[in-house]
Amino acid sequence: MLLKLRPHVKRDLLALLCDKLVSMGVHHCISETDSEVHIGLEKPLSSEVLSDLQTLGCIAEMIPISTPWKLTSKAFKKEKTQITIKGVTIGGPEVIMMAGPCAIESEEQLRSIAKQLSRAKVKVFRGSAFKPRTSPYSFQGMGVEGLRLHKLVQEEHGMLIETEVMDVRDVEIVAEHVDILRIGARNMQNFNLLKEVGGCKKPVILKRGISATVEEWLMSAEYLMAHGNHQVILCERGIRTFENSTRSTLDLSSVAVARQMTHLPIIVDPSHAAGRKDIIPALSKASVAVGADGLLIEVHHLPADAKCDGKQALLPSELEVLSQELDAIAKAMGRSL
Amino acid sequence: MLLKLRPHVKRDLLALLCDKLVSMGVHHCISETDSEVHIGLEKPLSSEVLSDLQTLGCIAEMIPISTPWKLTSKAFKKEKTQITIKGVTIGGPEVIMMAGPCAIESEEQLRSIAKQLSRAKVKVFRGSAFKPRTSPYSFQGMGVEGLRLHKLVQEEHGMLIETEVMDVRDVEIVAEHVDILRIGARNMQNFNLLKEVGGCKKPVILKRGISATVEEWLMSAEYLMAHGNHQVILCERGIRTFENSTRSTLDLSSVAVARQMTHLPIIVDPSHAAGRKDIIPALSKASVAVGADGLLIEVHHLPADAKCDGKQALLPSELEVLSQELDAIAKAMGRSL
Amino acid sequence: MLLKLRPHVKRDLLALLCDKLVSMGVHHCISETDSEVHIGLEKPLSSEVLSDLQTLGCIAEMIPISTPWKLTSKAFKKEKTQITIKGVTIGGPEVIMMAGPCAIESEEQLRSIAKQLSRAKVKVFRGSAFKPRTSPYSFQGMGVEGLRLHKLVQEEHGMLIETEVMDVRDVEIVAEHVDILRIGARNMQNFNLLKEVGGCKKPVILKRGISATVEEWLMSAEYLMAHGNHQVILCERGIRTFENSTRSTLDLSSVAVARQMTHLPIIVDPSHAAGRKDIIPALSKASVAVGADGLLIEVHHLPADAKCDGKQALLPSELEVLSQELDAIAKAMGRSL
Amino acid sequence: MLLKLRPHVKRDLLALLCDKLVSMGVHHCISETDSEVHIGLEKPLSSEVLSDLQTLGCIAEMIPISTPWKLTSKAFKKEKTQITIKGVTIGGPEVIMMAGPCAIESEEQLRSIAKQLSRAKVKVFRGSAFKPRTSPYSFQGMGVEGLRLHKLVQEEHGMLIETEVMDVRDVEIVAEHVDILRIGARNMQNFNLLKEVGGCKKPVILKRGISATVEEWLMSAEYLMAHGNHQVILCERGIRTFENSTRSTLDLSSVAVARQMTHLPIIVDPSHAAGRKDIIPALSKASVAVGADGLLIEVHHLPADAKCDGKQALLPSELEVLSQELDAIAKAMGRSL
Repeated sequence: MLLKLRPHVKRDLLALLCDKLVSMGVHHCISETDSEVHIGLEKPLSSEVLSDLQTLGCIAEMIPISTPWKLTSKAFKKEKTQITIKGVTIGGPEVIMMAGPCAIESEEQLRSIAKQLSRAKVKVFRGSAFKPRTSPYSFQGMGVEGLRLHKLVQEEHGMLIETEVMDVRDVEIVAEHVDILRIGARNMQNFNLLKEVGGCKKPVILKRGISATVEEWLMSAEYLMAHGNHQVILCERGIRTFENSTRSTLDLSSVAVARQMTHLPIIVDPSHAAGRKDIIPALSKASVAVGADGLLIEVHHLPADAKCDGKQALLPSELEVLSQELDAIAKAMGRSL
Repeated sequence: MLLKLRPHVKRDLLALLCDKLVSMGVHHCISETDSEVHIGLEKPLSSEVLSDLQTLGCIAEMIPISTPWKLTSKAFKKEKTQITIKGVTIGGPEVIMMAGPCAIESEEQLRSIAKQLSRAKVKVFRGSAFKPRTSPYSFQGMGVEGLRLHKLVQEEHGMLIETEVMDVRDVEIVAEHVDILRIGARNMQNFNLLKEVGGCKKPVILKRGISATVEEWLMSAEYLMAHGNHQVILCERGIRTFENSTRSTLDLSSVAVARQMTHLPIIVDPSHAAGRKDIIPALSKASVAVGADGLLIEVHHLPADAKCDGKQALLPSELEVLSQELDAIAKAMGRSL
Repeated sequence: MLLKLRPHVKRDLLALLCDKLVSMGVHHCISETDSEVHIGLEKPLSSEVLSDLQTLGCIAEMIPISTPWKLTSKAFKKEKTQITIKGVTIGGPEVIMMAGPCAIESEEQLRSIAKQLSRAKVKVFRGSAFKPRTSPYSFQGMGVEGLRLHKLVQEEHGMLIETEVMDVRDVEIVAEHVDILRIGARNMQNFNLLKEVGGCKKPVILKRGISATVEEWLMSAEYLMAHGNHQVILCERGIRTFENSTRSTLDLSSVAVARQMTHLPIIVDPSHAAGRKDIIPALSKASVAVGADGLLIEVHHLPADAKCDGKQALLPSELEVLSQELDAIAKAMGRSL
Repeated sequence: MLLKLRPHVKRDLLALLCDKLVSMGVHHCISETDSEVHIGLEKPLSSEVLSDLQTLGCIAEMIPISTPWKLTSKAFKKEKTQITIKGVTIGGPEVIMMAGPCAIESEEQLRSIAKQLSRAKVKVFRGSAFKPRTSPYSFQGMGVEGLRLHKLVQEEHGMLIETEVMDVRDVEIVAEHVDILRIGARNMQNFNLLKEVGGCKKPVILKRGISATVEEWLMSAEYLMAHGNHQVILCERGIRTFENSTRSTLDLSSVAVARQMTHLPIIVDPSHAAGRKDIIPALSKASVAVGADGLLIEVHHLPADAKCDGKQALLPSELEVLSQELDAIAKAMGRSL
C-alpha cells in the first residue's frame, strides 16, 4: 500500500505519521521528490488503522497496490515515464542511442571517440571512470580524473554523458559531473548504494544483475524510487546461464515482461551480454524490435588497445552503419532513432 | 575431416573404404543424399593414410574442417541452405510463418483454425499428434488418427503441414503424412531418433534442447546430416534458466551465433519460450529483427478449451494483426513475410 | 487420484472400467505389476462418478493423492522401497557400490576391471554397450556384442550388472542380458522409452536429466511405475548450471528433497557430475552423508586409454581406498557399505 | 606474479618501487599485513625489468604464479590457513559450528537463543544487524543498536560473534563490535567493500555470490588478501539455478574444487541454500563429509515469529541433536566438532 501525502505536508506532521507507523511495527519508506511525497508500506493496513491515520489530516490518498513493487508499478502510474534531460527524452517515441568506451582511458581517447559518435545519432556518451574488475590487479579506472575528462569532452561535443557509480561515498561527486548515473549489474542489490542514489536528483540507469529475476530488478528500482529518485531507467544486459557462446544470455523477454509491469523506460546493453562484437548488430535490431527505449553500446576507436572489453567494442564507423539499420526498424515500429 | 566421394561411387568400393577406416580404428559416419556421399571422420587422418585411401580411387575431395560440426558448418557450405517444399522456400528472403495448435484435438478444431490462418500469411500449419507430456496421466495426443486428420484438413487448405515425431518406430508413418517432421526439445539428444530421421528424406525442424548449448544443437543437426538428411531447419525455443517470469528464456543470441556457424535455416518458436501470450508479439518482432528465417507460433481458436498450453496460444485474429506488424519489420530488414 | 483394483480383476471388467473413464474424457494409465493393478487418474473424480464406478465391483480402494506424482509418492507407500536382486538389496540399510567403466570396450578390459572391483565392495558392475555421444563421428558403443561380453564376465565374477538402454527397440534384448537397466540423463524425458521400460520386469536406474527439476524427475519415475515397473532407482548425476569448474553441478539437495517426496531408493553418480577425478572421493562421501542408497562410480584400469570420459575414471585401487573411507561414513550414519 | 618484499621495508623504498611499476604501466596491488608485504602484479614482468627492480634492494623473493588468484593460491601457501580467534581455530582439525538467528531482533531474542546454543557445541554466534532485503519496505535490521546488543549477549555467553557488513562506511564500527565480519552473497563483488574490509584486521567470512563461479569467488578473496586482510574464510551458500525445490542449489562440489585451489578455510551455510528446514540436517552432514571446516546454520527459538527467513531456521533443540550426528561424521573423517 502507498500513502500519498497532501502537497507541502509539514515536517512535524510527517514525523508524527511515521512515529505512528513505527509504533505499530509497520515497516515503511518515505519517497520524497520535489513535487510529491509517498510512503510505501510493507503490508496493507486494516481499515481501523487507516481511519485513525486519516485523522492526522496529511494523507491525500491511499493507493492499494498488491504487488511488492509499488511506485514502479503500472498500478501507481499508467502512462510511460518520460525522462527529459537537456532536450533529450528517454522513454518517448525516440529510441535513444547511448554509446562510448567501456573505460575512460585518456582525454585523447574520449575526444577521438566522441568526434565520430555524433555522426551515429548518439545522444548519450557513455564511459566509466570507476571500473568493477574481477581481479584486484587489473586497471581499476581513472577515478575522479576520469570524471573531469568526461565532462571536459562533453562540453566540446554536447552529448549527454553517463557513468557508473560504485561507491556510496562517490555518489555526490559523480552526480556533479555527469547527466546520468549508472548502477552496474554487480551492484543491482547493493542496497546502500541504491538508497544513496535514491537521495540524488540525477537520472539513473539501473542494470539488471546477471542473476536477478525481473521481479528483483523492479524491486531494486523500487528502492531508488522509494528513496526519492523517480528518474529510473531500467537496463537489460544479459543473465548468466549455462550457454557459453556469449558472455551472458541477453534476455529480451525481460524487456517485454517488464513493460507489462512498470511505467519506467527500459533500455538494452547488447555489448556486455554478447561479449563479442560480431552479433551486436543483430542483437541491437532485436532490442529495438522488442520495444526497448534505447541502446547502450560499447564503441572504441582502437579496440585492440582498449584497457578492457575490447573484444565487444564496435568501431565508430560500424556504429554509424548500424544506426541507419536501427532507424529503419524503429520506423517500422512507429518510432525513430 | 570430411571425405567427399566421387559421384555414383560403387557399393563395394564404399564398403572397402569403410572397412579400411574400421581397421584403423577411425570412427566415421556415411552421409548419403540423393546426389552426394560424404564420410565424416572423428579425427583428421595423417597424410600417409590419406594417400593410401586415395589409391582406392573413390574419393573426390578431402575437406579439412576443424570444428566438430562439419556438414552443418559454413566451412562445408558457404551460402545459406534453402529448403523448398511445394513452392515454399525456407531459408530464402521470405520469413516463413508457421502456426497452428499445440495438439491436434479433433477434425473440427483443425478446420476452424486452418480456415482463419490463411488470412495471416501462414505457410505451414503446425499441430502435434504425438505429445510429450510430463505426466503419464495427461492427454498423450491423438496418434495416427491425428496425423490422418492433419492431412485431411491440409488437402482443403493447401498449407504445408508439420508435426512432431517422438518414437523411432513412428518415423515412417509420420513422414508419409506430413511435409515437415519436427524433433522436439526433449528429443534433441535422442540420438537414435536423430539417426532414424537422418535416414528419412523429409525436411525436419530440430528444436534446441532446453539445456543445450548452441554447439550441442549444431552437433544434433550434424547427426541428421551425417545420416543423410540435409534438409534441417534449426529452431530456437528458449532455454532453462533461473528466470521464472517466462517458461523458458528465449535466447535470441543463439540465432545470431548459429548464423555465424552454419548454413542451415533458423527459425524461432516464441510460444514455448514465453509460456504466456501477452509477450508473443514483442518476441516475434525481435525474432524477425535478429534474422530468423521463420516463426513457429501456437494458435488456438478456443484457447481456454485447449488440451494443452492454452495460455500461450494466440487467437487467429491476433495472429493476423501480428503478421502485418511482422511484415513491416521484415521489410525494414530487406525481407518480407 | 489412484484407483486400486481388487486382486485378480478380470480383463473384461478392467476394459469396461477404462471405457467408462474414456467416455468421460478422464485421462488415465493402468499400472499392472505381478501382484497389483492401479489406475492413475489425471484429476480427482466427483463423488457421483466414483459411486458409479464402484458399482462395477472391481475397485478395492480409492486413494486420493493431491500431488501429480502418485505411485512414486509417500502418500502411496510410506516405507522405503527395497529392491532385492540375487541377494543384493538396494534401498535397505546397506549403501550399494556400483562401479565399472563408462563404455564396454573389450572382453579383456571388462575382465581386468571386474577382477579388481571385487576387493572394493562393489556389488553392481556398470558398463555401457550403447553410448549416447554428442558427435555422430564418435565411438557409439559395442552394441549387442558388448551386452554379451558384459554377461560373460559377470558369470565369472558374480556381481550384478547394469547397462544403459537408449532405444525402445533394444529394451527386450538389454533386459535379457543384464540385471538392472539404466535410463540416461538425456533420455529422462524420452517418454516412449519410459513406457517401454515400464512394461519390462527388470529394475531400472533412472538418471535425472541435466535440466530436470526434482518434480520432473519424479514424474518420469511415475511414467515407469504407471506403466507397470515398480522397481525404480533414482540417480542424481548433476545439473547444468553456469559453474564450469565441474562438468555438471552435483545437486545433493535433490537427494534430500526427493527423500521427502518418494519411497523409491536414490543413488548418486558423482563421476558424470564432476567430470574430473580429483573430487570424486569428496563427493562420494558427501553423497553417503546426505543419505544416498548407493553410488555409481566410473572406474577404468587404464584411464588414459579409455574410449570415453577417461578423465573422470578412478583406478580400481583408488576405489578400494575410497570404499573404506565411505564405509566409515556409512557406519557413522548407522548403515554400512 | 607476486613480489615478496624484505621485512621492514622502508616506506620510501616501497613508494619508489610502486612508482617504477606505475611508470611501466604495470597494474598492481600492495598487500600489507603486520608481518609481511607482498605486491601482486597483473602480469609477469620480463627478466630485464625484474633485474632492474632487484637493484632497489627491497625485493626478497619473486614468486611466479600463473593463476589469476595468487595470494589465495596453494602456489603461494601450501599448508591450510588456520585462523585462531580467542582460542577457537577455524581451518584446523575441528569442524566449527556457527549458528544463530538470521536477524538480530531484540536483546531478549539474542539471549534466549544464545543460552541454548552452548549445549550444541556452537563456537560462533551469528546474527545480522544490517539486513540486505529485496524490498525497501521490509525490516532493514537494527543497525548499530543491534551490534551493541550482540556484543552485550556475547559477554554473558563467551561465544565468538560474527555479523554482516554491507556498507563501506560501517566497516570500522562493525569491526569494533564483533570477532568476525561477514560479506554477504550479494556483496561478493562489491569491490569497494572488499577493499575496505581488506584494510581491516578482523577475520572475514566471504560468502559466494549466487551466480559466482568458484574462480570469481577466489578472486574476491584475492581482493581481501591483496588489500591486506589474510584472514579470509570462504563460505559456500548455494548458487542460483533452474531448480526451485530449494531456494538456491547448494554446490558442495565447490568446496571440493576450492580445496584444490586455495589454502583458505571453507565453510558451508546450508540454511540460505535450502530455504527450508527439513533438509538442513542432511545437507549439514554432507557438508562435513565433503570436507567443510565449519557450518553456518540459522537457528531461532520462535521461527514462526522471526522477522526474516523463519522457514529455514532450526530450533536450538534440533541443532543440539544435529550436532551429535555431525560429530559422528566428523569423527569418521578423522576430525571432530
